[in-house]
Amino acid sequence: MRDIFTAELTQLGEDLQAMSRLVESAISSAGTALLEGDVALAENVIADDSTIDAIERDLDERCVALLAQQQPVARDLRIVVTALRMSASLERMGDLARHVAEVARLRYPGRAMPPELEPLFRQMHDSAVRVAQRVTTVLGSHDLELAEEIERDDDNLDRLHHETFTATLGGDLTLTPQQVVDVTLLGRYYERFGDHGVSVARRIVYLVTGELDEHGGP
Amino acid sequence: MRDIFTAELTQLGEDLQAMSRLVESAISSAGTALLEGDVALAENVIADDSTIDAIERDLDERCVALLAQQQPVARDLRIVVTALRMSASLERMGDLARHVAEVARLRYPGRAMPPELEPLFRQMHDSAVRVAQRVTTVLGSHDLELAEEIERDDDNLDRLHHETFTATLGGDLTLTPQQVVDVTLLGRYYERFGDHGVSVARRIVYLVTGELDEHGGP
Repeated sequence: MRDIFTAELTQLGEDLQAMSRLVESAISSAGTALLEGDVALAENVIADDSTIDAIERDLDERCVALLAQQQPVARDLRIVVTALRMSASLERMGDLARHVAEVARLRYPGRAMPPELEPLFRQMHDSAVRVAQRVTTVLGSHDLELAEEIERDDDNLDRLHHETFTATLGGDLTLTPQQVVDVTLLGRYYERFGDHGVSVARRIVYLVTGELDEHGGP
Repeated sequence: MRDIFTAELTQLGEDLQAMSRLVESAISSAGTALLEGDVALAENVIADDSTIDAIERDLDERCVALLAQQQPVARDLRIVVTALRMSASLERMGDLARHVAEVARLRYPGRAMPPELEPLFRQMHDSAVRVAQRVTTVLGSHDLELAEEIERDDDNLDRLHHETFTATLGGDLTLTPQQVVDVTLLGRYYERFGDHGVSVARRIVYLVTGELDEHGGP
């Protein structure tokens, strides 16, 4: 019985990592689609989001089944409940990558991104991809130092998000209202993506140390 | 033992309703603060959000304790897991109300809302308040028809959200970039608020009927 349970917990961890790898791929492709105006890539991200959603549903069902059949307590219970929450965050990160791709697709054959803001969004893209990659790694390694790095990536995303406002409102650029809308939403999507990455990181720290950051969660 | 468990489940339901009433009050005050430029009201909403967060943390801890101590199965298990998820949605609705209030406070003594868009946002406000009120009622009554009404309120919010883009980009209004940014974010906050309300409504339907909408959850 215990062996089966241990195998199931291992499987949960592997599924979360699989979800996270798909999120990593989604945010990476979404940013490329946005910055290169690649509509085919945008459409792939949009279509593939249903795979992430399906893994989440399957994982959640198995968590509930585990609670019912194995009646875990203490640390085992914490692992299952935390898995439920992490899958919700990863699913949401997939949605946000899809939203970035949707903006890219909507503006095709034009570009959503004003050329002057490309360098800024290239930095946001890099930070978001790094968050996703580190989340995948931390899900496997439970490396607390790397989890801490995700917080710093997110701080960076917050700073860059703030810079999008400065750039949009600074008066040096002449943006159309549509560009202002797109940049505002895209900045928000990247910022939320980072928040959810931090939420997953904090939950892993919680699993390892038993301490949940008071200000946890996006 | 069973009596204690039943009492605990009742308490969970009451706490969710208490959270929902606070969310109702938050979104109602946030919209008034926004539309009337009432900075004191905005500051109340911002300060009071921590109460909603505290109820969520307490409720979640009790759910995990219930899982450990009572080892519920079947419907009882479903109730506890669903409570965990609904508290997350309600907490997020509180955050979104706070974000609306933050925009109102940021622009004080000016107004974030261009006068021409006031009627549209007044409708969004009314729909969002109705979502929150109905969520509170449905949490108590488990009335499936009212849960269905929340879907319609949300459809309405989605339509109004779409109208904000038409109005912003239609060329009939001359908005500053700051106004475009504010209107874009505010529209997004209201739209997400409705999504989370629908998510709570669908989870109640799931509790009653055992059927979860495939496209459930925001």
